[in-house]
Amino acid sequence: MENGAAERWGFRGNQVLDKAASITVRGVLRKVISNLNPQDRRPVITLGQGDPSAFSCFRTAPEAEEAIVDAVRSREFDSYPPDVGVLPARRAIAEYLSTDLPYKLSPDDVYLTVGCGQAIELIIKVLARPGANILLPRPGYAFYEALAAANHLEFRRFDLLPEKVWEVDLEGVKALADENTVAMVIINPGNPCGNVFTHQHLKKVAETARMLGILVIADEVYGHLVFGSNPFVPMGVFGSITPVITLGSISKRWIVPGWRLGWLVTNDPNGILCKSGIVETIVSYLNICADPTSFIQGAVPQIIEKTTDDFFSRIISLLGKTADICFDGLADIPCITCPHKPEGAMSVMVKLNVSLLEDIDDDMDFCMKLSKEESVIILAGFAVGMKNWLRITFATEPPFLEDGIGRIKAFCQRHAKKQ
Amino acid sequence: MENGAAERWGFRGNQVLDKAASITVRGVLRKVISNLNPQDRRPVITLGQGDPSAFSCFRTAPEAEEAIVDAVRSREFDSYPPDVGVLPARRAIAEYLSTDLPYKLSPDDVYLTVGCGQAIELIIKVLARPGANILLPRPGYAFYEALAAANHLEFRRFDLLPEKVWEVDLEGVKALADENTVAMVIINPGNPCGNVFTHQHLKKVAETARMLGILVIADEVYGHLVFGSNPFVPMGVFGSITPVITLGSISKRWIVPGWRLGWLVTNDPNGILCKSGIVETIVSYLNICADPTSFIQGAVPQIIEKTTDDFFSRIISLLGKTADICFDGLADIPCITCPHKPEGAMSVMVKLNVSLLEDIDDDMDFCMKLSKEESVIILAGFAVGMKNWLRITFATEPPFLEDGIGRIKAFCQRHAKKQ
Ligand SMILES: Cc1ncc(COP(=O)(O)O)c(C=O)c1O
Ligand SMILES: Cc1ncc(COP(=O)(O)O)c(C=O)c1O
Repeated sequence: MENGAAERWGFRGNQVLDKAASITVRGVLRKVISNLNPQDRRPVITLGQGDPSAFSCFRTAPEAEEAIVDAVRSREFDSYPPDVGVLPARRAIAEYLSTDLPYKLSPDDVYLTVGCGQAIELIIKVLARPGANILLPRPGYAFYEALAAANHLEFRRFDLLPEKVWEVDLEGVKALADENTVAMVIINPGNPCGNVFTHQHLKKVAETARMLGILVIADEVYGHLVFGSNPFVPMGVFGSITPVITLGSISKRWIVPGWRLGWLVTNDPNGILCKSGIVETIVSYLNICADPTSFIQGAVPQIIEKTTDDFFSRIISLLGKTADICFDGLADIPCITCPHKPEGAMSVMVKLNVSLLEDIDDDMDFCMKLSKEESVIILAGFAVGMKNWLRITFATEPPFLEDGIGRIKAFCQRHAKKQ
Repeated sequence: MENGAAERWGFRGNQVLDKAASITVRGVLRKVISNLNPQDRRPVITLGQGDPSAFSCFRTAPEAEEAIVDAVRSREFDSYPPDVGVLPARRAIAEYLSTDLPYKLSPDDVYLTVGCGQAIELIIKVLARPGANILLPRPGYAFYEALAAANHLEFRRFDLLPEKVWEVDLEGVKALADENTVAMVIINPGNPCGNVFTHQHLKKVAETARMLGILVIADEVYGHLVFGSNPFVPMGVFGSITPVITLGSISKRWIVPGWRLGWLVTNDPNGILCKSGIVETIVSYLNICADPTSFIQGAVPQIIEKTTDDFFSRIISLLGKTADICFDGLADIPCITCPHKPEGAMSVMVKLNVSLLEDIDDDMDFCMKLSKEESVIILAGFAVGMKNWLRITFATEPPFLEDGIGRIKAFCQRHAKKQ
């Protein structure tokens, strides 16, 4: 090619997408990881992402694996799946979720997705009509912001209040909402805070949403992973107060995030989502978006039915133990404050006091230097909406976690301001 | 709830999506299927979709199944996969595709997707900047139109010419393109026409694209499924004339459309896609879109390596046989003209002469009545851009196909105008 001929090409990248994707957790983590020092011979300790599946103590239930093998071998699931998902899986998920609800879900309320991530994509797309806005929690899960930006859906952030066990600032929600607000998102059990909302607080969330005429999107991808005093209450319990759309997956409870099987569920005993055209658009969009693998869909009934309570309680107690290790270990570090001991999910938000450190500018600088000097990866809080906070994922093998917390402590001591 | 309270809700469906999704093949097929007569005791014969996986003669290679079982059991692939796909799979696909190219692809040229369908979604998103337009074939694969509409990318249709073995009307392409045209799509082997482009014609396509400064998107989801006189030539062969983006999957050649594993590959020895920001946006978008199941990614090297030539040639000869049955059977039907015997892929386009029929208005009316009276499902041509044509999928069990063609014949005789 002659020089400069590239100028003639008519195509170029889509900057809206470039910009939207730049704010994901994975993107920020990649940057932190890129700062690792290859000379450091110690193992890299990753406390950055809610994915402990690589550790043998967090290995998924053998029953779940066998369900997949049986489904592949049955050869019943090689064909294209229906857009909404195969019926036995939808039925099994409807029953699974109905056990905690005051009414029964129908299989028609359940839509299968490629992990909870695609359920988020789906609901954002469905709601993204021109002019609409959505309310997102801060701190939150940056994927919502990225998807909203990519789909031209305006988002506004309400606060979770550290001084109130990370409850939703409902007054703030009311102040943010206007006649174009379509929904608010809650994540329970909470990522990144590790909090678990009470029944009473969830009811208030529903009542606030009802008052504002908006729906509640309840991200329950960490559903049932609770190990504190609050039980897990699904938001769907309040579906008769305001329509609730629940998002979930097998990624976290079964510790198989790579399998990519999730769901979007309408909890709407009053049929409001149908009347408003939301259900129709969900079905429309499923026509043109990627489907989860058919034999994994086929395996869902067996995965849900055969996984033992033993497996679930072993995982819960392991998570509780690692939460303790994390909380207790961090308590000794002066520049880090942890407002609440995590009671659910896989991570905790802690406040960084940079004024106690000599040569650390902010949360990202902390994470970049920690990566280089200690080979420990954690997430800078700005990536989840809170500058000068840190998100630490504790769901990892206990000795590994102890080592990681020890290195964070050493790092903070080394960088502490001399008194 | 008091009456009328639903009016107060702030959310409603997204009509852009509803409209976009209404033009998919699956949507039209669903309508045709809904017209079946439940009283008819004969088996329903579906010649509507390229998915023969339910028939035992089209069953996938046992080596492919075992590759999945091994990958699940290895427990190495339960974690989140990297956004671009796992390296061994990218490497295996790069090697697989390089065997037919005059240069070697690198694993970095390969991006894994949830079937070829998501590869289409990906490239449409990447190219959809405001004002841009894309050229799509008519007849074509309606999914492109649906995705373009959903993403506000203008599309213009160029013709495939039945009188020229369904070659691209290159003069038409030149007339359609303007300074905002970014790409043209070709599907080879062809869906819906069953044609296979020659080396010479593909070269002309590349030269035309080069002249226009646009890239060629080559949908090769039916790659290697050829059984006529033209060999399969991948468009990547001409990647040094103009940048080529190849889309593919294991869905068709391995007959596992439910597994949802595909790829987008940049064939661009001159590095133009990098300079123009296209590669960057591909990577950005992969950050925020659904990933294929990790253990299926993990199984790809073994699937490619272990599947025997015997399997592939058995499938090819079966497809050739069914193409014959279809072509020969339709030849006897006066109101149907088949311009060319299919030489590849799984379907054929035939012209319907409604003036020879008594009470059939058009292609959709034909399909709806055929469904009701004969329990045979075929696709109305308008769904792929050609009114009063029909798309018939022949990839099905031979006796079943013979029965289906026989019923179409009986239907046409019954509805023929009395002379
Ligand atoms: C709050 C939240 N929602 C959704 C997801 C995505 O879940 P999945 O892996 O099932 O796509 C995550 C993953 O970490 C998450 O933390
Ligand atoms: C031309 C064409 N492209 C893409 C696809 C989608 O392929 P996949 O099943 O791998 O998503 C199809 C499916 O029929 C097709 O016919």
